[in-house]
Amino acid sequence: MALLVKGGTVVNADFTQRADVLVADGKVVAVGPDLEAPAGAEVIDAGGAYVMPGGIDPHTHMELPFMGTVASEDFYSGTTAGAVGGTTTIIDFVIPSPQQDLLDAYHTWRGWAGKAATDYSFHVAVTWWSDSVRAAMGTLVNELGVNSFKHFMAYKGAIMCDDEVLVNSFTRARELGALCTVHAENGELVAHLQQQLLAMGITGPEGHPQSRPSAVEGEAADRAIRIAQVLNVPLYIVHNSCIESLQAITRARNEGQRVFGEVLAGHLLVDDGVYRHNDWDYAAHHVMSPPFRPKAHQEALWRGLQAGMLQTTATDHCCFCTPQKRMGHNNFTQIPNGTGGVEDRMHVLWHHGVNSGRLTPSEFVAVTSTNAARIFNIYPRKGLIAPGADADIVIWDPARERTISKDSHHQKIDFNIFEGMVVKGINTVTIANGAVVYRDGDVRTVRGAGRYVDRPPFPSYYDAVKRAAEVNAPSAVTRTG
Amino acid sequence: MALLVKGGTVVNADFTQRADVLVADGKVVAVGPDLEAPAGAEVIDAGGAYVMPGGIDPHTHMELPFMGTVASEDFYSGTTAGAVGGTTTIIDFVIPSPQQDLLDAYHTWRGWAGKAATDYSFHVAVTWWSDSVRAAMGTLVNELGVNSFKHFMAYKGAIMCDDEVLVNSFTRARELGALCTVHAENGELVAHLQQQLLAMGITGPEGHPQSRPSAVEGEAADRAIRIAQVLNVPLYIVHNSCIESLQAITRARNEGQRVFGEVLAGHLLVDDGVYRHNDWDYAAHHVMSPPFRPKAHQEALWRGLQAGMLQTTATDHCCFCTPQKRMGHNNFTQIPNGTGGVEDRMHVLWHHGVNSGRLTPSEFVAVTSTNAARIFNIYPRKGLIAPGADADIVIWDPARERTISKDSHHQKIDFNIFEGMVVKGINTVTIANGAVVYRDGDVRTVRGAGRYVDRPPFPSYYDAVKRAAEVNAPSAVTRTG
Amino acid sequence: MALLVKGGTVVNADFTQRADVLVADGKVVAVGPDLEAPAGAEVIDAGGAYVMPGGIDPHTHMELPFMGTVASEDFYSGTTAGAVGGTTTIIDFVIPSPQQDLLDAYHTWRGWAGKAATDYSFHVAVTWWSDSVRAAMGTLVNELGVNSFKHFMAYKGAIMCDDEVLVNSFTRARELGALCTVHAENGELVAHLQQQLLAMGITGPEGHPQSRPSAVEGEAADRAIRIAQVLNVPLYIVHNSCIESLQAITRARNEGQRVFGEVLAGHLLVDDGVYRHNDWDYAAHHVMSPPFRPKAHQEALWRGLQAGMLQTTATDHCCFCTPQKRMGHNNFTQIPNGTGGVEDRMHVLWHHGVNSGRLTPSEFVAVTSTNAARIFNIYPRKGLIAPGADADIVIWDPARERTISKDSHHQKIDFNIFEGMVVKGINTVTIANGAVVYRDGDVRTVRGAGRYVDRPPFPSYYDAVKRAAEVNAPSAVTRTG
Amino acid sequence: MALLVKGGTVVNADFTQRADVLVADGKVVAVGPDLEAPAGAEVIDAGGAYVMPGGIDPHTHMELPFMGTVASEDFYSGTTAGAVGGTTTIIDFVIPSPQQDLLDAYHTWRGWAGKAATDYSFHVAVTWWSDSVRAAMGTLVNELGVNSFKHFMAYKGAIMCDDEVLVNSFTRARELGALCTVHAENGELVAHLQQQLLAMGITGPEGHPQSRPSAVEGEAADRAIRIAQVLNVPLYIVHNSCIESLQAITRARNEGQRVFGEVLAGHLLVDDGVYRHNDWDYAAHHVMSPPFRPKAHQEALWRGLQAGMLQTTATDHCCFCTPQKRMGHNNFTQIPNGTGGVEDRMHVLWHHGVNSGRLTPSEFVAVTSTNAARIFNIYPRKGLIAPGADADIVIWDPARERTISKDSHHQKIDFNIFEGMVVKGINTVTIANGAVVYRDGDVRTVRGAGRYVDRPPFPSYYDAVKRAAEVNAPSAVTRTG
Repeated sequence: MALLVKGGTVVNADFTQRADVLVADGKVVAVGPDLEAPAGAEVIDAGGAYVMPGGIDPHTHMELPFMGTVASEDFYSGTTAGAVGGTTTIIDFVIPSPQQDLLDAYHTWRGWAGKAATDYSFHVAVTWWSDSVRAAMGTLVNELGVNSFKHFMAYKGAIMCDDEVLVNSFTRARELGALCTVHAENGELVAHLQQQLLAMGITGPEGHPQSRPSAVEGEAADRAIRIAQVLNVPLYIVHNSCIESLQAITRARNEGQRVFGEVLAGHLLVDDGVYRHNDWDYAAHHVMSPPFRPKAHQEALWRGLQAGMLQTTATDHCCFCTPQKRMGHNNFTQIPNGTGGVEDRMHVLWHHGVNSGRLTPSEFVAVTSTNAARIFNIYPRKGLIAPGADADIVIWDPARERTISKDSHHQKIDFNIFEGMVVKGINTVTIANGAVVYRDGDVRTVRGAGRYVDRPPFPSYYDAVKRAAEVNAPSAVTRTG
Repeated sequence: MALLVKGGTVVNADFTQRADVLVADGKVVAVGPDLEAPAGAEVIDAGGAYVMPGGIDPHTHMELPFMGTVASEDFYSGTTAGAVGGTTTIIDFVIPSPQQDLLDAYHTWRGWAGKAATDYSFHVAVTWWSDSVRAAMGTLVNELGVNSFKHFMAYKGAIMCDDEVLVNSFTRARELGALCTVHAENGELVAHLQQQLLAMGITGPEGHPQSRPSAVEGEAADRAIRIAQVLNVPLYIVHNSCIESLQAITRARNEGQRVFGEVLAGHLLVDDGVYRHNDWDYAAHHVMSPPFRPKAHQEALWRGLQAGMLQTTATDHCCFCTPQKRMGHNNFTQIPNGTGGVEDRMHVLWHHGVNSGRLTPSEFVAVTSTNAARIFNIYPRKGLIAPGADADIVIWDPARERTISKDSHHQKIDFNIFEGMVVKGINTVTIANGAVVYRDGDVRTVRGAGRYVDRPPFPSYYDAVKRAAEVNAPSAVTRTG
Repeated sequence: MALLVKGGTVVNADFTQRADVLVADGKVVAVGPDLEAPAGAEVIDAGGAYVMPGGIDPHTHMELPFMGTVASEDFYSGTTAGAVGGTTTIIDFVIPSPQQDLLDAYHTWRGWAGKAATDYSFHVAVTWWSDSVRAAMGTLVNELGVNSFKHFMAYKGAIMCDDEVLVNSFTRARELGALCTVHAENGELVAHLQQQLLAMGITGPEGHPQSRPSAVEGEAADRAIRIAQVLNVPLYIVHNSCIESLQAITRARNEGQRVFGEVLAGHLLVDDGVYRHNDWDYAAHHVMSPPFRPKAHQEALWRGLQAGMLQTTATDHCCFCTPQKRMGHNNFTQIPNGTGGVEDRMHVLWHHGVNSGRLTPSEFVAVTSTNAARIFNIYPRKGLIAPGADADIVIWDPARERTISKDSHHQKIDFNIFEGMVVKGINTVTIANGAVVYRDGDVRTVRGAGRYVDRPPFPSYYDAVKRAAEVNAPSAVTRTG
Repeated sequence: MALLVKGGTVVNADFTQRADVLVADGKVVAVGPDLEAPAGAEVIDAGGAYVMPGGIDPHTHMELPFMGTVASEDFYSGTTAGAVGGTTTIIDFVIPSPQQDLLDAYHTWRGWAGKAATDYSFHVAVTWWSDSVRAAMGTLVNELGVNSFKHFMAYKGAIMCDDEVLVNSFTRARELGALCTVHAENGELVAHLQQQLLAMGITGPEGHPQSRPSAVEGEAADRAIRIAQVLNVPLYIVHNSCIESLQAITRARNEGQRVFGEVLAGHLLVDDGVYRHNDWDYAAHHVMSPPFRPKAHQEALWRGLQAGMLQTTATDHCCFCTPQKRMGHNNFTQIPNGTGGVEDRMHVLWHHGVNSGRLTPSEFVAVTSTNAARIFNIYPRKGLIAPGADADIVIWDPARERTISKDSHHQKIDFNIFEGMVVKGINTVTIANGAVVYRDGDVRTVRGAGRYVDRPPFPSYYDAVKRAAEVNAPSAVTRTG
């Protein structure tokens, strides 16, 4: 079925133009002025609004089993909430238990994700090491469309990687042309501080940020970067929340290293005052890792995004409802880590990013969609409105307002970290794979309509990495003495 | 007439694809696999080579009257040399004398440039201040296609701007939506050091770099950036040659400021050893400002380019032949400043940038063409291969080699700062405005075929600048006490 | 007359020891355990308190004629207030009008200062340039005990130096072995912003900080540093108030340059919220240049002090009472710039510096006394408790508290920027030149008891500067070709 | 016996004065002009030369059992060589094997050191963790005069500490008031690279630097700093050899953290070209960890020393003769790591530091002696010429030259990394504990004359650390909801 979006301003990451967009069979087929609607095509009048690529959230955890419970948002409800907020693709995480076969875990997650309403893909976590893990990484990349692996530097005693696993896995990813990603927090220090705080009788949610100061994130970010540098592997650091990790990324990028940084909508806007709230539930709902930070960090993260030192925005969408949070009532270390946001990300990014003069509309597209597509090698299929691209599109009215609330959001969580925030500039229509899945409050997503997105290895930046490796190869000295 | 480039890999700044390119009436009309050649179309087999946007050199000085002589390269010969080397657009400079009417100067330069073989545009220098200058800036922007103004912070007693002129001109450019550019060297210090060196009897070309240490460039770069920050004006710094100015730009960009940086091919590759060469002519031919720097600066500049802190590459192409250089035989301050490079820029950038693993082919396109087009607001007309764009195209064979030499180059100068350099990866064909102007050694440029390119004001980054100004507007306190 | 301070802990910048201190004829004659009091000596029991060198405030303006009025604090009242707060030496400023003879001005100030109760010395400002200025600088250094010259980069149209004056004066100071100091604000930008704000109808004290954003200070600091670097002159930047100038100093020092930085007690503790106070008088009393800054700057300045990037603390003590401030009631640019602090500096530094764990007691001595003595070349006469040193001593009780207030302070100003602050850790006794001038609330200063302190040229860091100059001297190439 | 040094210029870290120095019973008893020699005193005419505190080398390994052999220099020969070069105190290392009792190891080393000719002290390495290690640390600090513990982050499978040991040991040191020190190299990466290089057939000494790139040092330095920051422990990083670790230290210090950095004379002056020397023995003699670095690092380290970011200079004196080096003839990982320098450190520091204009004589004293004394809490007993201090003194003739050579040095090693270097400015006399141990080529050291130096815990910087801990203590929220 065809669809014509007329009268809008098409905003891509590289430029903006007044143009219509014609969609057919789930693809964009034409972009230009005064396009004709084919017979039978649905015509949507953009009314001068922006027409932009649908959002890509490269960091979600739908229905994740974690800390003794399961995230409340499933792939259908989660992708639906995303679609309402303008996000049309997610990249979720397969997280095997230590000793679990990676392929088993992968297929388990693929099964869960079958119900998704919009497109999705998977990072796979490496949580332990063996020859079988090494082999499974090859299968995932070469046969199963995975081109990125995740490593947790925190969660000691559970899924934490030590340096030896990092070195092994990074080396393997390098062979395969995959992208290494890390959750950067020094798990040893976190564990030490947790025990120290509990021993002092600090058991409430305020113990959470005190056990994870920004220095532990900065340490891990720098360590991962250095390991990647030595092994000549591109690196992607998820959910940078603080000045320290931003500085580590900035340093590395300024030295020419291929390091990418992601920032969560929440870390850009919420500060650590929340943990000292009088209401335990309120405080506990903000327990996620890394935690929210003092205000100075938020401004720094915005600057990192403006400067291109951080390239992507995500949510780490991982919902737990109040009863789940209360599992840690007497011990903050047992509060399930995570909160929502997949529905709100693009709205808060526009409001605080574009309306404030920090980002141009094109830069907004870059940091909410295009950059993720390029880094994870699904561009120009995703992240661009141009003939041939998937028809994942939002129509964005810069004058329309919305008040964010748990009472009206579509996310399956009884809390919203942006509660009460009025945002100006939101999508009025979301098109996914050529179908209107959301329009002016009307949710039209279809369970299972989403497709798994294969991501091929060796994204473009690997070209330079490989050339550099040849030029800088180790060499022996032939001595005649 | 139509032209079909078949069998190449089209490289744009955002991605790379195997595709044919169809050209008609000077424009790209189609990009895709297996395109059909229209009747009568010329077909060029790219043979698997790269097909890329023609280069844009945003910093040239053809036939410039300067220091008592005139640059030896004219607009025809210069654009021809550019075309041979893959550059299809130049942005040259109108430089009024102090007290000269800006519009007079502009029309003079337009007259000279009529003979250009490829497209061109003009920055206009502000070298003094008055109400008439202020008015002329408006005319240039609103009626004459100029969207950038140049300010010299060096050349005391000649065309140097003091802070008062900078503040006035930047403020005016801000109103007009134009981009301020600066030549960043502290002219007061340069003048002082020149006198000091001459007084010490140091009269040879080695006095040139000693009179312009990198600190004088770093100072001026930082000053211009701060002035632009305070006035909320985007800024473009030409020919950054050193760590100091790169650091100033890096700091500013990391704080979210809209600052752009250009680097010359020469500053990336030539070090200051040249000034102590035994042959006076050899040393004198390297006299340009800023001068070539110690080796550590070259590596830093490459890193700046990789990190995106520097966005464009240029040449400051300003040729003076040996007899002209000898005007300063007894006094280095009288050696005409400048050298060539418009023909060599893209070749040396590919060889040292791409072959070394510093840049991907897409990044090469960005720094030689696309970024300049975006910054100076002629994108996507220039800097992109896509339907609707000007058909300025190079076919680039990564295996083809060339030895750079004054004896074989097409530049009108009896010297080449890259003399003897073997570069691998060069254009075999250059297409400008849809016509083949160079093919395999055969130069087919046509005098006067080039067109003046209007550049509209208010490039996209001005959107953010304007929004920020509103949000951060000064405000009074209403006191009730 | 002899004096024995018994039972204290002597704190010098390099170490701390339990020791008695014997004073005679205005000098320290012995430091050690269990000293015997000579016959007739006064014995003061320190009771375990700290015994430290008296403070040196290297930046005061007593009875300064400025902006159409005269600072309300004179040399007697001002040095008395200093003595009450533990400061026993000030370095004030001779500020000639443009075209005024420097020696005339110097003698005028010497005359005024004759009434001082404690020791004093003078920086001399260079506010214009001529051969006579050049000659006067020589006389001041070689005959009159001046080893530092001040340059204002702000106050356009009044005492502002442009780059040409800076280059001339710095070059001359270098010959003489004197230290160049600067007030770093870009006066051109300040003047522009002032006019712009007034034109917008912003006339209240809130216009003051808006006309002097931290970027204008950062710019000037960097410029002065670069000029000093190029000319190979040591540099001292007064009253750094912001991250930007601190960064400029930090960069330079990390590159090995001899740059020193001063910070005012007020800039460490007061933020710019004061300018939006509902009470005009309150806001106006904070009008000084550079202005108070947003909170992030205060924390950064403390870190700079801890890191040794800033070496001295001062006050810029320049008092204007409410009627004087009201001269600018309709125009913030006419509010006399300045406030008090000479009495409070050491108290607030200890309370916020030492009690907070930022500084050790020895580091407190360094930043309030020793470093200034070393930089301005009056060490070990001042800034140290050791045999031979001037007997300028404070006995400091770390448990004693004081509430700062205009109602109880000894400064001749009807306002205090630290009003209501409770500080813990104050001097109970002040000894100047061997005499008790303050003890437990009892003020015993004597008008005219202070002496002018000659400061010899060529402080120790000049040794390295001179050697570096020889090693890096410019050189000519002898060409045989 | 008394000794009078007449007619010299006494240089301490804080200032310089013409003065005589009177010594008796191993202590300085007077410093001042025109001192009288007591009856029977030896009088040494300094002839206008500098009189400075004897050097302290805080990093030596005399007769260390390491990598299957024992360092060739013993405590007698090593302290003698030091004395010849002006160094009168060393701090060596007790290095227990994993599982070895720390006290046993300590007593073993004390036994070996009994033969030392000048004073010495010991750092003790923590190479494993248990309750007994924890207890032993207490005994060492409280009863045995140890106030610093060393941690190796390299040497995987041998003495490497993982993060868990670091956290435990740092926490314990904090309780005891001891200083944590680290050898910063990421041992996991080194081990990986070593295996990779050997697998590629790179077995010669050139493999050594290729297996230890500066990034592995930078990583570990940053990690140790972050761990220390989180645990609020002062930290000392030994032998910083590269820009990366210097940057990590600089960042931390600029944020107010108590981090100290040491640099070796060799790393300041020798570059990594040595590893590609045609002579295997020559290359192998330079095998030490961290390795020598590309030239850019040397200049950066000098700047770090000038800026005060690095405070101490040492040698890591650990001698292996040619037959020992040849143990790794077929495998660079088996070449014993280490070289000499205790005799040359002060000479090369003066020549390249003072003569070049980088350091003043006072700064030379600081970085060769005073700073180490202050950091390791033996000041003012060591590191100062003042009444009460140990009479460890050098008379330094700035005009005297020496050519460094293995043929004339007193070190027990058949190689010298400074071979052939002509240095100007050397000690003509060395006095240790009041006795002349070296004079004009005449070596007078006495076996066993050196004394063990107790170093008390809680150096002055611990005051601030403890206050900061109180101010920033974790806290719980009392919720009423």
